Amino acid sequence: MSTKLRAAIVGSTGYGGVELIRLLLTHPNVAITSVISSSSAGAPIADGFPHLNQIMTDTLDAVDVELIRGKADVVFLATPHGVAAELAPKFLDAGMKVIDISGDFRLTSGEVYEKWYKHKPADPAYVEKAVYGLCEVFGEEVRGAEFISNPGCFPTATLLGLAPLAAKGWIDLKSIIVDAKSGVSGAGRGLSLSSHFSEINENFLAYKVNKHQHTPEIEQVLGRLAGEEVVMTFTTHLVPMTRGILSTIYVNLNATRSEDEIRELYRSYYEGRRFVRIREQGKYPATKEVTGSNYCDIGMSLDPRTGRLTVISVIDNVVKGAAGQAVQNLNLLMGWDEATGLAFTPVYP
Amino acid sequence: MSTKLRAAIVGSTGYGGVELIRLLLTHPNVAITSVISSSSAGAPIADGFPHLNQIMTDTLDAVDVELIRGKADVVFLATPHGVAAELAPKFLDAGMKVIDISGDFRLTSGEVYEKWYKHKPADPAYVEKAVYGLCEVFGEEVRGAEFISNPGCFPTATLLGLAPLAAKGWIDLKSIIVDAKSGVSGAGRGLSLSSHFSEINENFLAYKVNKHQHTPEIEQVLGRLAGEEVVMTFTTHLVPMTRGILSTIYVNLNATRSEDEIRELYRSYYEGRRFVRIREQGKYPATKEVTGSNYCDIGMSLDPRTGRLTVISVIDNVVKGAAGQAVQNLNLLMGWDEATGLAFTPVYP
Amino acid sequence: MSTKLRAAIVGSTGYGGVELIRLLLTHPNVAITSVISSSSAGAPIADGFPHLNQIMTDTLDAVDVELIRGKADVVFLATPHGVAAELAPKFLDAGMKVIDISGDFRLTSGEVYEKWYKHKPADPAYVEKAVYGLCEVFGEEVRGAEFISNPGCFPTATLLGLAPLAAKGWIDLKSIIVDAKSGVSGAGRGLSLSSHFSEINENFLAYKVNKHQHTPEIEQVLGRLAGEEVVMTFTTHLVPMTRGILSTIYVNLNATRSEDEIRELYRSYYEGRRFVRIREQGKYPATKEVTGSNYCDIGMSLDPRTGRLTVISVIDNVVKGAAGQAVQNLNLLMGWDEATGLAFTPVYP
Amino acid sequence: MSTKLRAAIVGSTGYGGVELIRLLLTHPNVAITSVISSSSAGAPIADGFPHLNQIMTDTLDAVDVELIRGKADVVFLATPHGVAAELAPKFLDAGMKVIDISGDFRLTSGEVYEKWYKHKPADPAYVEKAVYGLCEVFGEEVRGAEFISNPGCFPTATLLGLAPLAAKGWIDLKSIIVDAKSGVSGAGRGLSLSSHFSEINENFLAYKVNKHQHTPEIEQVLGRLAGEEVVMTFTTHLVPMTRGILSTIYVNLNATRSEDEIRELYRSYYEGRRFVRIREQGKYPATKEVTGSNYCDIGMSLDPRTGRLTVISVIDNVVKGAAGQAVQNLNLLMGWDEATGLAFTPVYP
Repeated sequence: MSTKLRAAIVGSTGYGGVELIRLLLTHPNVAITSVISSSSAGAPIADGFPHLNQIMTDTLDAVDVELIRGKADVVFLATPHGVAAELAPKFLDAGMKVIDISGDFRLTSGEVYEKWYKHKPADPAYVEKAVYGLCEVFGEEVRGAEFISNPGCFPTATLLGLAPLAAKGWIDLKSIIVDAKSGVSGAGRGLSLSSHFSEINENFLAYKVNKHQHTPEIEQVLGRLAGEEVVMTFTTHLVPMTRGILSTIYVNLNATRSEDEIRELYRSYYEGRRFVRIREQGKYPATKEVTGSNYCDIGMSLDPRTGRLTVISVIDNVVKGAAGQAVQNLNLLMGWDEATGLAFTPVYP
Repeated sequence: MSTKLRAAIVGSTGYGGVELIRLLLTHPNVAITSVISSSSAGAPIADGFPHLNQIMTDTLDAVDVELIRGKADVVFLATPHGVAAELAPKFLDAGMKVIDISGDFRLTSGEVYEKWYKHKPADPAYVEKAVYGLCEVFGEEVRGAEFISNPGCFPTATLLGLAPLAAKGWIDLKSIIVDAKSGVSGAGRGLSLSSHFSEINENFLAYKVNKHQHTPEIEQVLGRLAGEEVVMTFTTHLVPMTRGILSTIYVNLNATRSEDEIRELYRSYYEGRRFVRIREQGKYPATKEVTGSNYCDIGMSLDPRTGRLTVISVIDNVVKGAAGQAVQNLNLLMGWDEATGLAFTPVYP
Repeated sequence: MSTKLRAAIVGSTGYGGVELIRLLLTHPNVAITSVISSSSAGAPIADGFPHLNQIMTDTLDAVDVELIRGKADVVFLATPHGVAAELAPKFLDAGMKVIDISGDFRLTSGEVYEKWYKHKPADPAYVEKAVYGLCEVFGEEVRGAEFISNPGCFPTATLLGLAPLAAKGWIDLKSIIVDAKSGVSGAGRGLSLSSHFSEINENFLAYKVNKHQHTPEIEQVLGRLAGEEVVMTFTTHLVPMTRGILSTIYVNLNATRSEDEIRELYRSYYEGRRFVRIREQGKYPATKEVTGSNYCDIGMSLDPRTGRLTVISVIDNVVKGAAGQAVQNLNLLMGWDEATGLAFTPVYP
Repeated sequence: MSTKLRAAIVGSTGYGGVELIRLLLTHPNVAITSVISSSSAGAPIADGFPHLNQIMTDTLDAVDVELIRGKADVVFLATPHGVAAELAPKFLDAGMKVIDISGDFRLTSGEVYEKWYKHKPADPAYVEKAVYGLCEVFGEEVRGAEFISNPGCFPTATLLGLAPLAAKGWIDLKSIIVDAKSGVSGAGRGLSLSSHFSEINENFLAYKVNKHQHTPEIEQVLGRLAGEEVVMTFTTHLVPMTRGILSTIYVNLNATRSEDEIRELYRSYYEGRRFVRIREQGKYPATKEVTGSNYCDIGMSLDPRTGRLTVISVIDNVVKGAAGQAVQNLNLLMGWDEATGLAFTPVYP
C-alpha cells in the first residue's frame, strides 16, 4: 500500500506497549508515529529499552490528545486500568480509532466493574460503544468497528478453550472450574515484592483466589455465548517464567459425547482461523510452543472414569493475551488479513 | 543415645536417595552405614555428588542383601518402581525394617497397580504387610511397624489437603478435582527430553492428563477415609523450578459450612502435628515457604458465589514428598519424636 | 523476486536447525524445500516440534545427497561436528552452495582441529575452500562464495568484541583473557546430565576450563587480524537460562588511549553494519537485549586505575551465534541486503 | 551448655537477617531473643515471612539500644550500609559484642570508603576496633574479639580463592583479574528494576563495571597478605538465580610452578578448615554444590599455553557470603568449634 496507517501507543513503557512496538515495527501496513508515556515524556524510548537501540530512535511523547490526533490515525491504549477510562473517550471524540488493552471497557456493567476492580467505572456511553475483541469469536463485530476493547490475557486463553462448548450448549454451566497459570510479565513492569526475582524464582503460588478481576469478564462472555448466566470457579497462579499462560479448564458435559466429537466441534468452530491450533488426542500444548507468537493452542482429554472434560489452552500472554491480539484486532478492523504482521513462528526453545 | 540406628540407602544416586543422605547425616539417632547403587557400586559417592566432598567419604555398595543386612538395621528403598517390589521382600525376610519410597507397595490392588504403572505388581503377601506412611493421618499405624510404604509426592500434598474433609464426610466425593503442579526434580535424575533444561525452562505444561499413576493412590486413601469409593479428576503440570509441589484442590461441600468452620476442622485434625501449618483467611502458601523442609502448608477459600471450596496445599516434593517423610516415618516407627532430625527452617529465599 | 531460492536444512531436529526454519520461513527470498534428519526421517517435523503445527507440514527427509540436490539450491549443515566433514564435500561436489554451522571447516590446521575436537579433521582441500563467515569482519569474502563456514557462538561474540582492536593493533596480544558465559541451548538438544534441568537450574558453573574447542578458532582469527600469533586465556561458563552469550573480555592496551577514542574506533569499524550496536559510556549490554535477534551489542570500560580495558559483548547464541548469522551469510553470498529476513526486533522481556 | 548466648538481629527483614534467623534457630549454643526492624516494628515476623509460621512467633522490635541491650549479649547488624556506621558504636558502648554484616567497617581508610560507597564513613575510632572476619584467613584475630566486620560476599569468594597465593607471594600482583558472578539475592530485598523478575529472568548482564564497592575491600586484604599495595580489575555480573557466587580469578605466576604444587599450597593453607574444599585436578565447583551451606569450594587450572592460572571459587552468597560466616565468626569469637550450628550438608539439587 502506498501510505501506511499511522499508529500511536499510549503506555509505551509497559510490557504491553513495548511488545506493540515490536510487532508494529514489522507490520507492512502500519507506521508507528508516536510512542507515549506519561512518566518518561521527552526521553528517547531506547534509553529505558536498550533492545530498541538503533531500531527506534523516537522520543516519548506526553499524553496530549491534540498532539497525538495530529500524528496518528489509531491509538493503542496500553495503560493501567483507570487511565484508559479517562483517555479512550477523548481519543474517540477526536475521531480516532481506539484499541484499548486495559480492562476498563470490557465489562458491560459498571457495578460489576467496580466490585472486581475496586475502581470507578468508565462512562457507560463509551462502554456501550466498545466491541469486545476476542478475534476468533467476535471477529465479525470487529470488522469496521471504531473502538475495540481487547480481551484480558486469562480470558483469552480460557474463552478460546471454552467458546465452542459454551456456544454449542454442550456443558453443564454450573460445573466450570478454571485453574489458570501465568508467567510473571502478566503482572507488568511496576515494582512489587510479588515480582521481585528472589521471591518468585524457584517458587509457585496461587494469588487472588476467587478474587481475580478477570472472573466477571470470562463469565460475561461465556454467558453471552451460552445464552444464560454463568458463575464459575477461577484460580490464578504465578509461574516462575516470564511469558506464557496455561489454563486448565474442567467442565462436566451435559450429555454423553465422545472426545472425538468434541475435538471435531473445536476444529469446525475455529475453521479457517490461523491462530487457534487444536492438538491431536493425547497431546497437550506447552506454553513454550507459542512463545513470542499469536497462537492459542488447545488440547483436551475426556476422562471415561469421571465423564469430566479437561481442556488445556495456552497463549503467550504478551502476544495473544495483549499486544498480538490488539494487532489482530487492528487487522480485522481495517479489513486486512488477520495475520498481517503476525505470521511468524514461535521462538523455540 | 549411646548407639545409633544403622541405616542403609538403596538408590543413593537418585534425588530421593541423596536427600535421605542430607537429612540422615544430621539425624541425632541415626548413622548411615551403607549407601547403595546398582549402577555405580565401587565408586566414592562424592565422585558423582561433589556437594558431599569431605562430608561423606563412603564408597557405594552393590545391592547385596547379605552385605547390607550385616551393616544396617533399617533400609530405605529409593529405587525406581519395579525394583522395590523385588528388593523389599528380601530385606524384610532378612529381618530388616524397610521404608520404601517407591510406589510398589502403596496400592492394595495388584490389578489397579498394573493398570496405572504398566508393571507387574509386587507379591500381595508383602503388599499386605506394608503400612501406608502418611504420617499425619496414619501415624498410629506407623508406630512399631516393620515395613513402611512412603506416600507419593502428589498424594502427600493432596491428601493432607483433603484428609480432614474426607474423614469428616463434609464433601461431595464425586466433585473432587485436583490440579497439581510439580517442580522438575519430581521426574528424577534419569535423562529425558522432558527434563532437558532448554525444553523446560521458561515453559509450563500439563502431562499424563487423566493418566498419572498417583491417581489411584489418592483415590484409595480418600476412599478409606470417607468409607466409600472415590473417583476424582487429577491433572499434573510441570513447573520450571527444581523443588516444590502445589496442589489446587476443588470440592463441593455437601452441606452449608462457613470457611471458618472448615479451617477450624483442619486445625483440630492436625492439632499437635508440627509439620502441617494452616494459613489464616485470605493467605495462601507458596512452595518457597516450605523449600528444603518437611512442612506441608495449607490455605483455603470458600467462594460464596459458587459454594465451592478451593484448598491450596504445598510441600517440598523431595522432603515431605519423599525423603523427609521417610525420615518422619522412621521416627514414628522407632517411637522417637516425629521431628527428630527434621526440625529445621525452610531455606528462604 | 519471482522465484525463491530453494533451501535444505540438514540437522533440522537440533536447535540450530529448528531456528533456521523459524528464520527462513519469513525470509522473503527463500523457500525451505527440504528438512532433513538422519534420526527421524519419514516423520512430520511438527511431531517432534509442536510449535510448528500448521506452520510447517513437511515430513523429514533422509540424508540423501541426490534427493536434496534435486530439491534445493543451498544446503545448511546444522549437524554435530564430524558429520559436516563428511557431508559438505558431497554437497559441494554436487554443485550446491553450502553453509556449514558446525566447527568442521573453521580451523585451517587439521592438527589443531584434531587436538581440540578429538576428531579426525575434514579433507584439507575442502577446508581451504571454506570462507569463514564472520559477516561484519569478512563480509567481502562471503559475497559470491560457494562454501561458508559459519563461526561458533563464543567466537562470534568474542571476535566482534575484539576485532577492531586486533585489526588496529592497539592491544597487547599476550594479555587477552576472555571470560565467556552461555545459556544452556548452546549445549544442544542431546541429553546429558549437564543439561538436566534439576542440575543446571539455580546453578552456575565453569566448564572445559582452558580446554574449549572454540579457543583455537578465536586465536586463529585474532592472529589473522593482528598479523601475528595469538595465544589467550578462555573460560566458558554455563548460565541457567536458555538463550544468550555474554563475553567479558580483558585486554591491556599497548599505548595510552582514551575510552572515547576506543569507542570511536569500534563505531567506525562497524559503520554501516546494522547488527553491531555500540553502547554509550557507562552502559553495558544484557543478553536479553538481543534475545531472538541477530544483534551483537558491545559495551566497554577503560579502568584508569589499571589501564586495562574491559569489553562486554552479547549475542543470542542461537541467532547471531548460529542460525541468524548463517542466514546473514546467505544474504551476503547471494548479494542481498544482509538484513533480509532478519530485520526484526529482539523479544523483550 | 546450661545457658545460651542471647542474640539480637537488627535488619531481620532483609535476606541476610532472615538467613541469620534460619541458622541461629538450630544453633545449639544460641537463643535469638530479639529480631529488630526499623520499618516493621510491632508486627509478628511471620507476617512478612510465612516460612517462619509456627517456627518463630516473635514480634519485631524497634531499633532501641537500651531495649536490645537488656535482651541480648551479641547483636548482628544486617542493615544497609550507612546504618551500621551509626548503630555499631552505640551497641559497642553499651558493652555488647557486635557482628556487622554491612560494609561500613571493612575499609580502614575513610577516604576510600567515601569514594566507593558514596557515603560518609564511620567513626575511625570504631573502624580501628573492627576485626575483619574472614574466618579461614584471620580466624586467630577473631577469637576473643568484641567487634567483627563480616566480609562482603564477593570478597569472601575471591579472597579465599587468592589468599594462599597472595600470602605466599607466588603471583604477579599487577596481573589480577576477577570476573565475578552473583545470584540476585545479593542485591537484597529492596525493590528495583534490576531485581524485577521479568527483567532478570532469562538474562545475564554485567553491572558496576570497574565501580563495585567490593573492589577496595579485596585489594586491601590482598595488599595486607602480600605486604604491598594491590590494584586489580574486578567485574560483577548478575546470574538469573537466587543464591550463589562464582568468582573466576585470573593471575600470572611470578615463577614457574606446577598446578600440583599450587593445589598443595591451597591444601596446606586451609588444612583443618572444614569449610574450604579444594577440588581435584580437572574438577571445578558449581554454585549448587554449596547452596544453603557455609562451604567455599575451589578449583584451579594452570594453562601451560599461557602460563596463567585460573581459580574458580564458589560460595552461597547468603550463607558463607553473609549470615553463615557471621555465625562462624560468632563461634570463633566465643571459642566454640567454628562449625557449631553450621555442620549441615548443601541442599542438592
